Amino acid sequence: MVVGEVIQERELIIVGGGPGGYNAAIRAAQLGLEVTLVEKGELGGVCLSKGCIPSKLFAHTAEKLSDWKHMQQLGIEAGEPNFNMAQHQKYMDQTVTGLQKGVQALCKANKIEVINGSASFMTGNRIGIETGDTFEMYKYEKAIVATGAKPFVPESVELSTDRVYSAQDIYAIEDVPEHLVIYGSDYIALEAATSFNALGAKVTLVLDAESDFGFDTEINKELNRVLKKSKVKVIKECSLESVEAEKNNVTLHVLKDGEKLTVEGSHLLVSTGFRPNTKDIGLEPFKLETDEEGFLVVNENSETSTKGIYAVGDVTIGQSLAVKAIKQGKVAAEHCAGQISELNLRYIPTVVHTSTPIAYAGLSEDEAVAEGFEVTTGQFSMSGNGFAGIKGKKEGLVKIVKDSKTDLLLGVHMIGQGAVEMISSGVTALEMAARDEDILYPFYPHPSFNEGWLEALESMTGTAIHIPPNKQQKKDAQPVG
Amino acid sequence: MVVGEVIQERELIIVGGGPGGYNAAIRAAQLGLEVTLVEKGELGGVCLSKGCIPSKLFAHTAEKLSDWKHMQQLGIEAGEPNFNMAQHQKYMDQTVTGLQKGVQALCKANKIEVINGSASFMTGNRIGIETGDTFEMYKYEKAIVATGAKPFVPESVELSTDRVYSAQDIYAIEDVPEHLVIYGSDYIALEAATSFNALGAKVTLVLDAESDFGFDTEINKELNRVLKKSKVKVIKECSLESVEAEKNNVTLHVLKDGEKLTVEGSHLLVSTGFRPNTKDIGLEPFKLETDEEGFLVVNENSETSTKGIYAVGDVTIGQSLAVKAIKQGKVAAEHCAGQISELNLRYIPTVVHTSTPIAYAGLSEDEAVAEGFEVTTGQFSMSGNGFAGIKGKKEGLVKIVKDSKTDLLLGVHMIGQGAVEMISSGVTALEMAARDEDILYPFYPHPSFNEGWLEALESMTGTAIHIPPNKQQKKDAQPVG
Repeated sequence: MVVGEVIQERELIIVGGGPGGYNAAIRAAQLGLEVTLVEKGELGGVCLSKGCIPSKLFAHTAEKLSDWKHMQQLGIEAGEPNFNMAQHQKYMDQTVTGLQKGVQALCKANKIEVINGSASFMTGNRIGIETGDTFEMYKYEKAIVATGAKPFVPESVELSTDRVYSAQDIYAIEDVPEHLVIYGSDYIALEAATSFNALGAKVTLVLDAESDFGFDTEINKELNRVLKKSKVKVIKECSLESVEAEKNNVTLHVLKDGEKLTVEGSHLLVSTGFRPNTKDIGLEPFKLETDEEGFLVVNENSETSTKGIYAVGDVTIGQSLAVKAIKQGKVAAEHCAGQISELNLRYIPTVVHTSTPIAYAGLSEDEAVAEGFEVTTGQFSMSGNGFAGIKGKKEGLVKIVKDSKTDLLLGVHMIGQGAVEMISSGVTALEMAARDEDILYPFYPHPSFNEGWLEALESMTGTAIHIPPNKQQKKDAQPVG
Repeated sequence: MVVGEVIQERELIIVGGGPGGYNAAIRAAQLGLEVTLVEKGELGGVCLSKGCIPSKLFAHTAEKLSDWKHMQQLGIEAGEPNFNMAQHQKYMDQTVTGLQKGVQALCKANKIEVINGSASFMTGNRIGIETGDTFEMYKYEKAIVATGAKPFVPESVELSTDRVYSAQDIYAIEDVPEHLVIYGSDYIALEAATSFNALGAKVTLVLDAESDFGFDTEINKELNRVLKKSKVKVIKECSLESVEAEKNNVTLHVLKDGEKLTVEGSHLLVSTGFRPNTKDIGLEPFKLETDEEGFLVVNENSETSTKGIYAVGDVTIGQSLAVKAIKQGKVAAEHCAGQISELNLRYIPTVVHTSTPIAYAGLSEDEAVAEGFEVTTGQFSMSGNGFAGIKGKKEGLVKIVKDSKTDLLLGVHMIGQGAVEMISSGVTALEMAARDEDILYPFYPHPSFNEGWLEALESMTGTAIHIPPNKQQKKDAQPVG
């Protein structure tokens, strides 16, 4: 190995080239900083190669397949489809590679120095970078830690490439499993459940959580209905005891209501959270503040407890979502460049690409009540939406939570087709401190899913047009205690 | 015929049961009014039986068919599809009937008196209603005209049920035309063009307009590119001379650049606007204010020039869009019930369900400049959006127009998948008088089409992440003169 003799100086060094890292790098370069981005794998990180992108592609394909019966109703005759996983994975590779090349090209166009290597923080604002052949020492003015996280898998689980998967390797699978058992209750578990179900797998979802999926009560209820209808079996309130993987099957031993329960399947996905990638990168001497699980604590500028060292994305506290990483990356870069820039996670949208998608932002009814609000909620079932009828997507509902005293919106929740696209109008409204009248006043295209949002809000005053008078969904709730 | 002897008194009589009429009826009933709704055809009107709903269903089916090649990329193997129009029309009938029954049930649940008959306004706040068997006289306190409009077809065109269609009968067609010629340039012409094209027809679109489709310049440009790619032939700047319909074909004679041009096809759709249904309903004595074409002029409460007579929907001035009718219907009903309620058409969303959908609200760049604004525009091509890549929908762009001086948004424009769902965030922002920072600050789910909106705005300051530095789409324009 060639060890460099001089210390190279950089304005900003970013460790990790996932969404948080590369967005930070490009934004910093746009603002005139000299940026070095260190990535030991591929640009785009886990999100691009193993997480967000593959899972959304599977969800997309699953949607196409689950629409088959509806297509026949529409007069599209084409026999039963055969799903060719090898072709799907080929297309996925092309898509992922294309996106990776796109990020590479953007970094190049922004004159970002990209180093394929492993970085170690050292004292004196230094970072050592090993590329395999060389070890060079760099000095930074500012640094951003964007190393992400890795799946946390209970000790009793031994991952394997052909039968027992984590969230980061399930989408590399080579065949549709005969019977996929999923242990977990997060959005990753849910997306995998409905995607593989539509691809033809039998799916059993074994929830680790105490009760449900963690959405607003009404969303949970509708989700359970949708899962039941699509024959995804859900076993709730389980805790994992052990896993036995054999040649052709996997057995999960769990405790449910104090009783031992055995769940057998052909394959297993364990999705039980993440742990931050903070080891082996030399951060220990900085004694950066972390939470109990080691996630880095950052402030509204995405700066850690050590001035000049920022952290963005899954390595930080909060939800493991690319949307968080991207925003933090931009804010950190802007702050490094001397701009006034901050973020607040209060209205981060959470999006789940289940066969009937879910998206929400702000407070659920229960959360709002727990925070001391007197709330009014309104709700509209998408079965009453004309466009949903046309599209053959009548599952789902919209629910809106407002502060009864001020009429300010507190939370917007949707399960149903178009939820992902429409959540942005909810987030915009929440961020702009919208009152109910701000949502009631505008026009909503007809026919469109969008009208469901309006009718959810109208139902608060008993004036949703497509709900009969005795079924208007108004509900009031008082703060607890 | 039995002629009633007593004059029956009603608080509100609504003539016409389309979206404007039935939304008005239900809202008025919700507010405690005694409502009579007169409809000579089916509840839901033309929108439900011949317009919005059928056209959106055709667009939906067309989208499924045009996705076929993409589905093969995804590994979904199913041979070439056959399109069975009879089955499609059967499904459409079921869908339309289901929605009509829904409206009937809602009227019943809201205790609205629905009369299937023809209404004639008379002096002294009276309306005569003929049902075929009976003629009854009613006296109203308030009345709403919601009689809609019918297609305007040039004198030289003779409609026929099997070859020459208007906007209101094209979707009852029994077979996919071999070669559909469309004369017109409105959203109806456009939707029919891309829908029938995807269903397998050869399509020639002969534009009546001087130049283009009337969208923002960049949307027009992308739309032309998309049409060209999908092999829809567009002939611009034509004026109709005559039409010859024979047994198996239709010949259109037009003038283009002063030269005679002949366009032949198997079928013809003429979509050249509408004229209001104001004849034969006894409105003449009221001398209601109209525009040159006879559309009723209404104020912000949707009230005509005669106090107590309101008008809503296609019978009124402005665009022929159900979204307008619905809002006007609600506002008129609320005003009749003594509420303070008004509307402003400035930020009405226009939505076109072309194979690559279009949606916009507010001012185009040219309109803003013409109104005297100093504008900055930002633009993002959906080819740079990761989610669009996954979905196989890389066509399109987002363009945002803002006032350079105040940073207030003036217009939002999109062509691309998800445009219809996402336009609501634009409309909400426009109605709430959002500045650019209000759109830049929120989180946008990743990966999602929504990110395109953010990047369009970021491009105004050269900070769109997925546009190389030398291609950021910022553009400034000064007011004219």
